Amino acid sequence: MATEYKTLAGQNFDRAAFESLLRRKVFLWQSFEPYGATKGLFDYGPPLETLEAEIINIWRDHFIRSEKMMSLKCSMLTPYQVLKTSGHVDKFADYMCKDPKTGEILRSDHLIKDVIETRLRGDREARGEKVSDEPEDPKKKKKASKVAKTAVKLDDAVVKDYEYILATLDDCTGEDMGALIRKHDIRNPTSGNQVEDPVSVNLMFQTQIGASGKEPAFLRPETAQGQFLSFQKLLEFSDGQLPFASASIGYSFRNELSPRSGLLRVREFLMAEVEHFVDPESGKKHPKFASVKDVKLPLLDRDTQSAGGSTSKEMTIGEAVATKLVDNETLGYFLVRIKQFMEKIGVDQKKLRFRQHMANEMAHYAADCWDCELFNSYGWIECVGCADRSAYDLSVHMKATGVPLQVREPLKEPKRVEEFVAQLDKKKSGPKFKKDAGKVQSTLDELSQDVKEKLSLSLQQDGKVEVEVPDMGKVELEKDIVVIEKQTRTETMREFIPNVIEPSFGIGRILYSLMEHVYWTREGDEARSVMSFKPTVAPIKVLVAPLQKDVRFAGLLQELERRLDDEAVSFKVDQSGVSIGKRYSRNDELGIPFGLTIDYQSLEDNTFTLRDRDTTKQVRASIDQILDAISKMVKGKESWADVQNRLPAFESKEEDKE
Amino acid sequence: MATEYKTLAGQNFDRAAFESLLRRKVFLWQSFEPYGATKGLFDYGPPLETLEAEIINIWRDHFIRSEKMMSLKCSMLTPYQVLKTSGHVDKFADYMCKDPKTGEILRSDHLIKDVIETRLRGDREARGEKVSDEPEDPKKKKKASKVAKTAVKLDDAVVKDYEYILATLDDCTGEDMGALIRKHDIRNPTSGNQVEDPVSVNLMFQTQIGASGKEPAFLRPETAQGQFLSFQKLLEFSDGQLPFASASIGYSFRNELSPRSGLLRVREFLMAEVEHFVDPESGKKHPKFASVKDVKLPLLDRDTQSAGGSTSKEMTIGEAVATKLVDNETLGYFLVRIKQFMEKIGVDQKKLRFRQHMANEMAHYAADCWDCELFNSYGWIECVGCADRSAYDLSVHMKATGVPLQVREPLKEPKRVEEFVAQLDKKKSGPKFKKDAGKVQSTLDELSQDVKEKLSLSLQQDGKVEVEVPDMGKVELEKDIVVIEKQTRTETMREFIPNVIEPSFGIGRILYSLMEHVYWTREGDEARSVMSFKPTVAPIKVLVAPLQKDVRFAGLLQELERRLDDEAVSFKVDQSGVSIGKRYSRNDELGIPFGLTIDYQSLEDNTFTLRDRDTTKQVRASIDQILDAISKMVKGKESWADVQNRLPAFESKEEDKE
Repeated sequence: MATEYKTLAGQNFDRAAFESLLRRKVFLWQSFEPYGATKGLFDYGPPLETLEAEIINIWRDHFIRSEKMMSLKCSMLTPYQVLKTSGHVDKFADYMCKDPKTGEILRSDHLIKDVIETRLRGDREARGEKVSDEPEDPKKKKKASKVAKTAVKLDDAVVKDYEYILATLDDCTGEDMGALIRKHDIRNPTSGNQVEDPVSVNLMFQTQIGASGKEPAFLRPETAQGQFLSFQKLLEFSDGQLPFASASIGYSFRNELSPRSGLLRVREFLMAEVEHFVDPESGKKHPKFASVKDVKLPLLDRDTQSAGGSTSKEMTIGEAVATKLVDNETLGYFLVRIKQFMEKIGVDQKKLRFRQHMANEMAHYAADCWDCELFNSYGWIECVGCADRSAYDLSVHMKATGVPLQVREPLKEPKRVEEFVAQLDKKKSGPKFKKDAGKVQSTLDELSQDVKEKLSLSLQQDGKVEVEVPDMGKVELEKDIVVIEKQTRTETMREFIPNVIEPSFGIGRILYSLMEHVYWTREGDEARSVMSFKPTVAPIKVLVAPLQKDVRFAGLLQELERRLDDEAVSFKVDQSGVSIGKRYSRNDELGIPFGLTIDYQSLEDNTFTLRDRDTTKQVRASIDQILDAISKMVKGKESWADVQNRLPAFESKEEDKE
Repeated sequence: MATEYKTLAGQNFDRAAFESLLRRKVFLWQSFEPYGATKGLFDYGPPLETLEAEIINIWRDHFIRSEKMMSLKCSMLTPYQVLKTSGHVDKFADYMCKDPKTGEILRSDHLIKDVIETRLRGDREARGEKVSDEPEDPKKKKKASKVAKTAVKLDDAVVKDYEYILATLDDCTGEDMGALIRKHDIRNPTSGNQVEDPVSVNLMFQTQIGASGKEPAFLRPETAQGQFLSFQKLLEFSDGQLPFASASIGYSFRNELSPRSGLLRVREFLMAEVEHFVDPESGKKHPKFASVKDVKLPLLDRDTQSAGGSTSKEMTIGEAVATKLVDNETLGYFLVRIKQFMEKIGVDQKKLRFRQHMANEMAHYAADCWDCELFNSYGWIECVGCADRSAYDLSVHMKATGVPLQVREPLKEPKRVEEFVAQLDKKKSGPKFKKDAGKVQSTLDELSQDVKEKLSLSLQQDGKVEVEVPDMGKVELEKDIVVIEKQTRTETMREFIPNVIEPSFGIGRILYSLMEHVYWTREGDEARSVMSFKPTVAPIKVLVAPLQKDVRFAGLLQELERRLDDEAVSFKVDQSGVSIGKRYSRNDELGIPFGLTIDYQSLEDNTFTLRDRDTTKQVRASIDQILDAISKMVKGKESWADVQNRLPAFESKEEDKE
C-alpha cells in the first residue's frame, strides 16, 4: 500500500533522525520520565507548547471570531448518567484479550494484525522477497521473532485469507475476532501463550465526584456532550434564531489499552470541536456557501474506496454539493474552512485530502461524514472529522431528562392537524387509578397514530381496550373511562430538534503532522535539519546574534531587545562563541524564521542584517526597516519575497560557511 | 470583620442582581444543568470563555514571552508514585464528619464555623443588636434555623471562647476539631444529629491508567509536579545556566467535599504556574530587580496580622526587600510583576493587597510566602500564591527516583574537603555480606559526619562498631573489615539542588473577582448595569447598530462588517427593533466597550458615530478614523480620552433617552 513519505524537499523521511531532533530540541517527551515514563501521555516542551498556542489562536480567529461562533468551556469531569444517555458507557470500548499466564492485556485487533503481518512477512522472506516494512516498534519485533518462526512459506490460499482479514479487521465484532484467534491459532507474540476470548473494555477513565461514593463519573471522551447540554442557553443567547454554532477547545480522555504511534494515539488530548445547529427543514443551506463554492478540494469518496481505489479527485465544493457527493452546503462550507485553516498554519496541501466515511464506518444516525486526513510517515491520518450527527444527541438527552432541547417557533400560517387522540375521563379515572392516573394517560399519549387508530376500532367493537403501562402491567380501559377518536386542532407553533454538523479537530495529530510537513534537511548535508514553520506560527520569531563576543555590541544588543519587546515579538539571543553559521543552523532546528545579526558595520552605520531561514538569503537595513519587516512577516501581512524585493540584499562571508 | 464590598462607582454591591446578570448574559452556569447540575463544576458561556482567553493571552505575553520563560504542557493524569513522593497522597486532604443517620458528609471546619456563627448571631439577636451578616447560602440558613434555637443569649465567656475558635480554626488538626465538636455539642444543622469524629479524606480524584488495574493514578492537584520532573530537560535547553523559569497553564483538580462560594472553590480549575529555579547561594538576586525597585505595593505582613491587624502598608519593593520584610529580590520582583499583570487586565488596584503567610500557614520547607489577594463580596480572596518552595520538590523526586534533578557546575577554584569516610574492605566484606555488601556500604555513606566521628572513636577503642542496616537489623563491623578515618579530597565540581520560587495563579478566582470589580450600575437606574471590561480584555469589542431597521443601511453595514473582520476585531450586530439607547444599555451588560452606529447622516457623508460604554460620550468621524481609533484602543495603545481629544464630539438625540 504505502506511498513512501517524503519531506517537503522530496527527500526520504528518516523518522529516527526526526524523532531525535524532537527530543534534542525538547519539542516533546513521554510524561513522568524519572518515574519510568507513562505510555500514551506526553509533555510538550517550549517549542511545541508555543506552537500549539499559536495554532489555537489562529483556530479561534478563523472559526470563533470570524464565524461568530459561541465559545464554550465545559467540564471534563462528567457524571455517569450523561454518558450513559449519550451511549458512551455502553459503546465507547475496545476489545482486549488477556494472556492468562502473564496477565498481559492485548488489544484484540492489534494482536491479530501484528501476528498476521509477521506471518506474511515470514512468507515473503521464505519466497525470497525483500522485506522492507518493519513493524512500528523495533523492541516488539525483537521479542516477536523469538517466538514466531520467521521465513515460513504459507499456502497461497492462506496468504489470500490473511490479506482479507487485514482488510476487513476494522469491521469485526468481538466474536468475529475471537473466532479468528482460535481458527488461526493467534497467540501472544511475546510469550507464545494462547489468549482468552476478546472482552469489551470501556475506554473512559472512571472516577467519582465527592466523598460519598454516590456520584460515579468519567473524564469526558469528547467535548461535544457539554455543548449539547448547553443548547437552551445558546439558543436564548442567539435570540432563538438558527443556525448558530458553538465551539469548544478542551481536553478529552481515552484510556487506550496499548497506546502507540506517538502523538497520534494518546490518552489525554486537546480537541477543538464545533457544533453547528441547523433546522433540518432548511436543506442545511449555508449563508456564506456562495463565497466558497469555487474552492477546489481533494475528495476521496465512498464509491472510489469501495472499488478499492485510494486516489482523491480535485473538485470544486460547488460541484460536489450540487451532485450530492457532499450531502449539503453546511458540510461543504466547513470542509472548505478546514482546508483554509490547514493552509494558514502551514500544512502541506499536497499531503491533505478529505475522505468520506464508508456506510458501515458511520454511526447509524449520521447523514454523511468526511475526515480531513493528513499524510505523514504513519500514512493518511484522520485529523479532523466533519460529521452530520443529525438530531441524535439532543434527542436522547431530551428524552432522558425531560428538558426541551428543541426549538419552538411560530408557524407562518397556523396548521390544521387531524389525529387520533386517546383521553381518559378525568372524573372516572381519578378515583380508579389514583396517583397512577397520570402514568396511564402518558402511556396513552405516547402511542403511535397507527396504534391509536387500532385501539379506537377495538374500543368501538369490544367496548374496552388493554394497554401495557410501565410498573403497572396490562391495564384494561372500558368505554366509559376513555375516549379514542380523531380530532382536529390548529397548531400555531412548530417544535423541532435541530440537526448538528460537527467539525472536530484533533489538535495533537495536526501538530504532529505539521511538524513532519515542515521538516527537511539542507541539500548535501543531512545533519543540518530545518523546521520550516511559517513565521505566523513559529514558536520563536527571531534569533538575535551578535557576530562575535565583543563588549562593543552590548549597547546595540540591548537596543534590539528593547525594540523587539516593544513590538511583542518573541526572540532568542544566541551569544555563544561558535560561528554565526553554526548558530543559524542549530536554531534552524527550532524553526526560528529570522536571524538578526549585529556586526561591525552595525557599530558604524546602525544597520543590521536579517536572514531568512528557508532561503538563507539576507537583507541589510536600518533598525526601523528591519523591525517593520519582521512585524509584518510574523503577522502574515508580508512574505520574505516581499521584503527581499524592497530591502537591499546582503552577502555574508560567514553565511558562506553555512 | 467585613468591610462592606462596594462597586467601582461606590454603590452597595447587590450580589443577587450581579449573579442574575451573569446567568442572563450566559457568563457561566453550573455544569450539566439538565441532569440536575453538579456542584463545584461550572461551564463558561461565550462572554466568560472569551474573557478567559484574552486574559490568558495577556498572561502569556506578560510572563512567558516578556520574561523568556520556558512554557510547558504536562499531563493531568499522574501516576500514584509521583504524588506519593510529592506528599499529596498523604497530605492533600480535608477532614470530614459523617452524619451516621442521614449518611450526609460535612467538611469539619465548615460545620464548626457554620454552627458557631449561627449561635453567635443568635446571641447578638438576643442582645437586641442588628444582625446584618447573613450566612452565604440562604437555603442553609432556613434549614439551620429549624434546628438551632435563634436568639439565645450566651455567657460572655462563651462568646469569647467561640470567637477564639473562629479565629484559630485554620490551625486545628482533625483531633482538635473532634474535641471542639464534642465539647460544644456541634451537630449537623440540617438534621440535628450528632456527627462522627473527623476523618481525613484525600481530595484527589483517583482513576487508573490502562485496563490492567496495575497503574493507579490521580488527576493532578497542581501543575507544579510535571514541571519539576522536566527539570533536566529545561536545564539542558537553557545550556545549564541558572536562573531560569518554566511556566505552565493548565487544569488541576480538587475533589472538594462540599463546594461553595461559586467560582472561588471548584473541582476543576485552570492554573497558571511559574517555577523559577535559582541557585540558593546566589542570594536569590534578580537581574531585573533594579527596574522595579521603586514600585509601591500594599503589603500586609506577618507581624501586623499576629497583632490582630488587617491593614496593609504601602511600601516600595526596594524597601521591603532591603528590610527583609520580603525575603529576597526574586520573590519581590514577582510580586511587582503580579501587580502589573492585575493592572493590565483591569483589576481594581484598591481591591488588591499582598498578604504574607503566618509562620504556621506555610509548608515546613517554605522560606517565605505572599498571597496576592483580591477583595470581592466574599472578602479578601487568595488569587495568586507566591511561595519560595526551597529545594523540597526536586530533592524528594531525586531521592525517590535516583535521577539527578540538580545542577553540576565546575568550581572556579578546586576545593579541598576534609571529612570522615567509612569504607568497607571489599575483599573481606564481599564474602561476609555477599549481595548485601552494597547495602551496608550505602548505610555507612549516609551517616552524618558527627556519627562517623563517633564511630571512628569506638572503632579505635572497642575494635568494632554496630550499625543499623535497613532489612538487615544491627550489623557488627570489626576493625579488619571497615576503615573509618578523616580523609582529604579535592572537589572540582559543585553539585546543588536549585531552589524554586513559585507564583501560582488561580485563573477562575481572578476572573470572578475581575467581574465583580468591573460591575456597576448607572446613576439613578439600578436596572442598568454595566460591565466595564477594559477594551483589551472585553469579550466583544464593538457593537454595530444601525439606527433603525432600514434597508438603506444594508450596504454600509456590510462594509463595516468587512472592515472590522479585516482588522480581526470581534463585533456584534444588533439590528433588533428597539431604540438605540436600549440596545446600548443591554449590551453594556456584556461589557462591549464601543458602539458603532449607522444613521441617516452616514448615508450622506459616510461618517459614523462611536460611543464609549463607560462615559456614554460619542464622537463622529469617517470609517477610516473610527476603525483606526478602535484598533488602537483594543490593543491598549490609546484610551477613550485620547480619541475624544482628537475626533469631533457628537451629541445624540437617541442617547438622551439612555
